[in-house]
Amino acid sequence: MAVKEVLTHINQEGRAKMVDVSEKSQTKREAIASGKIYMKKETLERIKEGTMKKGDVLSVAQVGGIMGAKKTSDFIPMCHPIMISGCDISFKLDHENNKIDIIATAKTIGQTGIEMEALTAVSVAALTIYDMCKAIDREMVISDIKLLEKSGGKSGDFIAE
Amino acid sequence: MAVKEVLTHINQEGRAKMVDVSEKSQTKREAIASGKIYMKKETLERIKEGTMKKGDVLSVAQVGGIMGAKKTSDFIPMCHPIMISGCDISFKLDHENNKIDIIATAKTIGQTGIEMEALTAVSVAALTIYDMCKAIDREMVISDIKLLEKSGGKSGDFIAE
Amino acid sequence: MAVKEVLTHINQEGRAKMVDVSEKSQTKREAIASGKIYMKKETLERIKEGTMKKGDVLSVAQVGGIMGAKKTSDFIPMCHPIMISGCDISFKLDHENNKIDIIATAKTIGQTGIEMEALTAVSVAALTIYDMCKAIDREMVISDIKLLEKSGGKSGDFIAE
Amino acid sequence: MAVKEVLTHINQEGRAKMVDVSEKSQTKREAIASGKIYMKKETLERIKEGTMKKGDVLSVAQVGGIMGAKKTSDFIPMCHPIMISGCDISFKLDHENNKIDIIATAKTIGQTGIEMEALTAVSVAALTIYDMCKAIDREMVISDIKLLEKSGGKSGDFIAE
Amino acid sequence: MAVKEVLTHINQEGRAKMVDVSEKSQTKREAIASGKIYMKKETLERIKEGTMKKGDVLSVAQVGGIMGAKKTSDFIPMCHPIMISGCDISFKLDHENNKIDIIATAKTIGQTGIEMEALTAVSVAALTIYDMCKAIDREMVISDIKLLEKSGGKSGDFIAE
Amino acid sequence: MAVKEVLTHINQEGRAKMVDVSEKSQTKREAIASGKIYMKKETLERIKEGTMKKGDVLSVAQVGGIMGAKKTSDFIPMCHPIMISGCDISFKLDHENNKIDIIATAKTIGQTGIEMEALTAVSVAALTIYDMCKAIDREMVISDIKLLEKSGGKSGDFIAE
Repeated sequence: MAVKEVLTHINQEGRAKMVDVSEKSQTKREAIASGKIYMKKETLERIKEGTMKKGDVLSVAQVGGIMGAKKTSDFIPMCHPIMISGCDISFKLDHENNKIDIIATAKTIGQTGIEMEALTAVSVAALTIYDMCKAIDREMVISDIKLLEKSGGKSGDFIAE
Repeated sequence: MAVKEVLTHINQEGRAKMVDVSEKSQTKREAIASGKIYMKKETLERIKEGTMKKGDVLSVAQVGGIMGAKKTSDFIPMCHPIMISGCDISFKLDHENNKIDIIATAKTIGQTGIEMEALTAVSVAALTIYDMCKAIDREMVISDIKLLEKSGGKSGDFIAE
Repeated sequence: MAVKEVLTHINQEGRAKMVDVSEKSQTKREAIASGKIYMKKETLERIKEGTMKKGDVLSVAQVGGIMGAKKTSDFIPMCHPIMISGCDISFKLDHENNKIDIIATAKTIGQTGIEMEALTAVSVAALTIYDMCKAIDREMVISDIKLLEKSGGKSGDFIAE
Repeated sequence: MAVKEVLTHINQEGRAKMVDVSEKSQTKREAIASGKIYMKKETLERIKEGTMKKGDVLSVAQVGGIMGAKKTSDFIPMCHPIMISGCDISFKLDHENNKIDIIATAKTIGQTGIEMEALTAVSVAALTIYDMCKAIDREMVISDIKLLEKSGGKSGDFIAE
Repeated sequence: MAVKEVLTHINQEGRAKMVDVSEKSQTKREAIASGKIYMKKETLERIKEGTMKKGDVLSVAQVGGIMGAKKTSDFIPMCHPIMISGCDISFKLDHENNKIDIIATAKTIGQTGIEMEALTAVSVAALTIYDMCKAIDREMVISDIKLLEKSGGKSGDFIAE
Repeated sequence: MAVKEVLTHINQEGRAKMVDVSEKSQTKREAIASGKIYMKKETLERIKEGTMKKGDVLSVAQVGGIMGAKKTSDFIPMCHPIMISGCDISFKLDHENNKIDIIATAKTIGQTGIEMEALTAVSVAALTIYDMCKAIDREMVISDIKLLEKSGGKSGDFIAE
């Protein structure tokens, strides 16, 4: 088994630790993650109507997702604190499949990757949509949260197939 | 359109507000949510090995998920603060489909439902698994996060079909 | 000097304490606070244009203010934690005086007043407007943050003259 | 309209984003902000008496303001996280006008300005004074929160007229 | 082994959970905890001199301890969120043994005990003293943090021998 | 009195400030702290049994301590925010003296020392053990929290005697 196959978060006593990245160099890093939230046709319609107004659901989800990304290391136990230098989220309403596609981009100059921040931005944006629409739809489903791309850092770039 | 069809988080100016629940009565409430995280066969094996040791990935995911549930109103913008009176998470390794099933239960005595806390517990637990295994598997996918059951409160009980 | 004239946050050693409200009864409480942010004519114009789009400055300020209100006891040192049961913010663009008027309402059922939450919602909303416009206007001024109304609790109702 | 006149926090879909500062260089930055809190003559007297004791209102406001500055990016939605390298607050009792003048200084080495931290320090210090004196004075007014000086960064130095 | 001897934080899968206290009744609860911090004679002298000024070390430790108590459930993983209704800390300089005695009291009306909040207040107050004096004394020792008294709740009152 | 004997956290008005470290150079820093928690013989036995299972008390204490270390500047008032680049905690069950020895290591590349993070990791780990065992033992005592080693930074290395 290659060295990289070891779960690096486990210490010698078999417990979790925050991996030491002190020796890693500061590089520019970027990650893009995506996810989907499925809902009833009517829920999607209601959200669409809102996007023509100023205080729509997606604006709040955007703010929630970005603020969530800033707090990633606060609630992912072994995640290093990181100084996000940029974050954006994009939503696409897919009326054919009654879902919203969410894509989040996060950037930093740092010693460790920023993929958790991008994944968290997507997760919190999706949860915010759920929260704001749950009074009219309890059966929404959040799915396919995954890493799309990752660049910077020693482990090399990554693009999902 | 029925009253319940209105997006209650939008105020008269068309912007988001935190809904007023002052008049709702304090009742015992419970919510159960579930989700899945798909991964490579080898990643699941590595996690399984860990569950025989004391500091395994799932223990950390359990702690992360429960602490995340306590912070739900901190990062879901319009979510009311709520006093969780109990929270538990259960994991099931599904070797046939190379995934882990996550089920979270949250309870409270309060004026508003606790489904966001259960959904957040699942989301943070899944993100924690991702974080701890990402060094060996960048292609994990978090899916099917949804509400299974909900009881207590005026809007009545709910059980997903 | 009347009893109410004593600074109740100071203990016998002369240091600050969090006042004991254990004996106070749970009542429905509401507070309304207001504030203003002055800016250049062009800055106000730019914000006004934004209000016709979905992601305007005021939507973000609304979310920031409401989330700030939920964290009031987190950063006001001697402030009791309180379960906000409702919060809303309203903005009025005043083109005559080149300012935006901000009014925040906060409600709770609790043992202690909710005026700090309303004042904090106004403050954070104003700071968010500043943050989002500072690239085009560094001379904005936040002013007249004050309590407008307060109801519930033993000390009686209050309406600013 | 000059490029600098664009609201840089708005993305192509018209929603808010956290501006990308990855390409900006790390420079030493400093910001000074000020504000005032007006109160009844007797409230100011009571605070003045306290300043001769160890646990006075202004000491708590000082701690609250500095801790608030550290959390700026936590509650200003699009604000970048920043590593404050120094923060101080100064109070001046103005008995002629029954107010307290607050001046906060914040420093950092970073890619983005620190003015929001200085403005937040002033705001939280003022709110803390309000909180600790509200039992004897509900009519305090927080005013004139503004940036006094700013140095470091590409956009050049700034001194309020 | 009596029922009360079971570690109630462990679920059926052998992992940690947040104990369900939904069925426990709301009662008035109080806890008192104490601790000590030993230091060099000169460090204690320097702190004593400060106590005659307004911004002394102990004032900051007082604020830190009270704010820390409010965040107890934020960083003690399985600790229930609780609404502290009062908190105070008292310091005694012991020149004979070159230490400071710290006593914290915390109160609430709730479903679960408040001893963790009292113990946390003591811990954070001691750590704050350490932080503010570490430039002149790196050998301080924090000791004897323990519960002195506890009242309210089903498990009965407790007074340390 | 030597310069280093001055309490650097006190400003000219005699109030606390966050010391300016802007001019200090970024160096690799490491700190090791230790502490003990004494308990009843039976409590230690119960914890020992748990260490053979996956969800033991010490695993949760490990996670709590590491997450606490990440939040150090959040609750130690004058402590600078710092980017922890690594953190680990080790526990040793001492059956002879009925206690658990806790040792925490924290690392960073930064302008200011990381000893408060190591001390906080120990404190929170000890408080977590207390929290999870308090149902069976209210008389646990947390003691001897101190700095063992410190390296990096201008003030030189330190090893406790």
